[in-house]
Amino acid sequence: MALRVQKYGGTSVGSLERIRHVARRIAGARRAGHDVVVVVSAMSGETDRLLSLGRELSSHAPEREMDVLVASGEQVSAALLCIALSDLGVEAVSLLGHQARIETDSVHTKARIARVDDQRLREALVAGRVVVVAGFQGTDAQGNITTLGRGGSDTSAVAIAAAVGAEVCEIYTDVEGVFTADPGVCPTARKVSHISYEEMLELSALGAKVLQPRSVELAMKYGVKVHVRSSFSEAEGTMVTGEEEALESVVVAGVTCDRDAAKVTLRSVPDQPGVCAAIFEPLAEENISVDMIIQNVAVDGTTDLTFTVSRGDLERTREVAARIAGELDSDLLGFDEDVVKVSIVGLGMRSHAGVAAKMFRLLATEGINIEAISTSEIKTSCLIRAKYAELAVRVLHDGFGLGGP
Amino acid sequence: MALRVQKYGGTSVGSLERIRHVARRIAGARRAGHDVVVVVSAMSGETDRLLSLGRELSSHAPEREMDVLVASGEQVSAALLCIALSDLGVEAVSLLGHQARIETDSVHTKARIARVDDQRLREALVAGRVVVVAGFQGTDAQGNITTLGRGGSDTSAVAIAAAVGAEVCEIYTDVEGVFTADPGVCPTARKVSHISYEEMLELSALGAKVLQPRSVELAMKYGVKVHVRSSFSEAEGTMVTGEEEALESVVVAGVTCDRDAAKVTLRSVPDQPGVCAAIFEPLAEENISVDMIIQNVAVDGTTDLTFTVSRGDLERTREVAARIAGELDSDLLGFDEDVVKVSIVGLGMRSHAGVAAKMFRLLATEGINIEAISTSEIKTSCLIRAKYAELAVRVLHDGFGLGGP
Repeated sequence: MALRVQKYGGTSVGSLERIRHVARRIAGARRAGHDVVVVVSAMSGETDRLLSLGRELSSHAPEREMDVLVASGEQVSAALLCIALSDLGVEAVSLLGHQARIETDSVHTKARIARVDDQRLREALVAGRVVVVAGFQGTDAQGNITTLGRGGSDTSAVAIAAAVGAEVCEIYTDVEGVFTADPGVCPTARKVSHISYEEMLELSALGAKVLQPRSVELAMKYGVKVHVRSSFSEAEGTMVTGEEEALESVVVAGVTCDRDAAKVTLRSVPDQPGVCAAIFEPLAEENISVDMIIQNVAVDGTTDLTFTVSRGDLERTREVAARIAGELDSDLLGFDEDVVKVSIVGLGMRSHAGVAAKMFRLLATEGINIEAISTSEIKTSCLIRAKYAELAVRVLHDGFGLGGP
Repeated sequence: MALRVQKYGGTSVGSLERIRHVARRIAGARRAGHDVVVVVSAMSGETDRLLSLGRELSSHAPEREMDVLVASGEQVSAALLCIALSDLGVEAVSLLGHQARIETDSVHTKARIARVDDQRLREALVAGRVVVVAGFQGTDAQGNITTLGRGGSDTSAVAIAAAVGAEVCEIYTDVEGVFTADPGVCPTARKVSHISYEEMLELSALGAKVLQPRSVELAMKYGVKVHVRSSFSEAEGTMVTGEEEALESVVVAGVTCDRDAAKVTLRSVPDQPGVCAAIFEPLAEENISVDMIIQNVAVDGTTDLTFTVSRGDLERTREVAARIAGELDSDLLGFDEDVVKVSIVGLGMRSHAGVAAKMFRLLATEGINIEAISTSEIKTSCLIRAKYAELAVRVLHDGFGLGGP
């Protein structure tokens, strides 16, 4: 008898019929003798509906209240799933973020889990119940409701799996697993049977929507085995595990395209010590993550600085950047949302030279200009015009032989 | 500077436009120098929508989970109202049942408030904020979400008003106040400017939808002044206060019609000591409230027993009654939902003889048969066929001179 954590995404609980289907699946795991903790997202479309209600009332809605608003979505789906389970004769109890004691920091709308106190979870399991935890939400030290950002239910699931020592954390979604590229864009994309935490982390951070990056970080930190699979089939999905367990160490494991990037340019910034800090500290204070950063070679004592942020942060970035530009006498400020970031990811890049060079050559062959580059040990990203997004993914995918022989 | 509790019902917050309207009203009270605690219901229709989702999944949905499900409705409206207030520059903070520490017993779907720990409420008020409390919900000693039954937000508001010592508890609704009868049924119905707790309690218990009975009980117990008024106008509504403050002590203050009654009949019950307990104890254990009870004169050692319950309890009453009937060898069991209860209420009935007799005569004049009678010090109720409901209300209203001279 093993303990499993199962997370069901929005499309998996998108209607009452689908909730019944999920309940039958959980009942099957119970019959097979497993203890089950379930983490649910809001019914598909619900989070967006709630967000738009709040935004319609105010363009500067307090984030604390936005969290209270959207957290109701997971509350509804958790209760409905318990009702469906009870109808199948499976005893279940729902726990909201504060009831499951998912403790987070106080950064509303993108809080980080600090700790999961598993006492109440264990009590319910010992009592023979399926525990259905509302994903995406937690509570801070003052008892305020917090949410974990888009895809936060993945993180709830992994954090709970780590806290209760689950054998596996199954992430049920509407795709069959992790693919070498988005199959909607790249017809030759294949499902990967195993992938390492490191690769998954890069892929998630780079726009593969299948797992929230923070969830992969936690899985890696606590060694939680994650199984990404479809709630609509019985097929095995993708196992995300430690590097040593990955069967093959490929040069490039996948290609992603991040459409969430926005480019910000500050021109004629004084080229002197402390300028970078003056720019990026205020952004950090606003909890705005800066991704790619390019500083041009200085000419006449000034330089141009380009960086990217996620589009959700663009509005606040505009405010901060305008203030900074004023302070730095840089009156030239540009914002560009017509860009995407394509990336290749693979553990093999650590030991194979020339991978980045091959990427640049493949893009050049198609006449795609590269506007910014960023690299890590196991990935290379290029910022390009948005119109080339699909073409670039296909060229890189097939150019690195991901489509098979 | 006074402290006011304002409760807004479902229609008052039924759309974003109405929520903005409510926010402006609260902003006005703040400008006038008042501290304000607001209690909100779910947006109109939302509670029913959630209930029907749960019921569609299971005819025996666990009540704990139904509470988790429907409590999300008030969570949404509380957050939206705070967002609307913030957009007007009014600092506000939402508190859910567990955050506002509204402690209840564990009777899910109709819990009773045991205590309000006002510490967090006071902290927010001292910080200069409007506090928006999600009505209808509380938390039991184990931290489970409970709800207070239909109209429970009224009770939340009065309990909070008592806890913080508010000058007045304003109940904003979609009618102008308390009427002598339902104006939709009785064209001569008038708004009452003052009414006593006792009368209001009877009227509420008897189907006047304007206040939850439990809220009037609490108001009476703690001497909370309640002002029932419309959120769509500035007109004064009805003040519900102690008897000594009521201006006029009329014989009959109002006429109500309760369409929620269902009649249950057990025939050929043995006429012996302990039988009534054998019947009503199991119902009480199931938290089913029995209203009117009629026991016929015994013939041949057996008797007939008739009682009424609310229709929401009918399904469970059927189960319990069938079990009891089996145990008592009473194989004749009848259920009748085609009845309504009309009532007259007034403090003056305590000192005026013949009021009940006049009621019976007025009904008889119209050929309306009375199937059961119940009385208290200040009310008389008659169970009649449902088809006579409107006619009976009009006849009693005008017969007791409530329509004016």
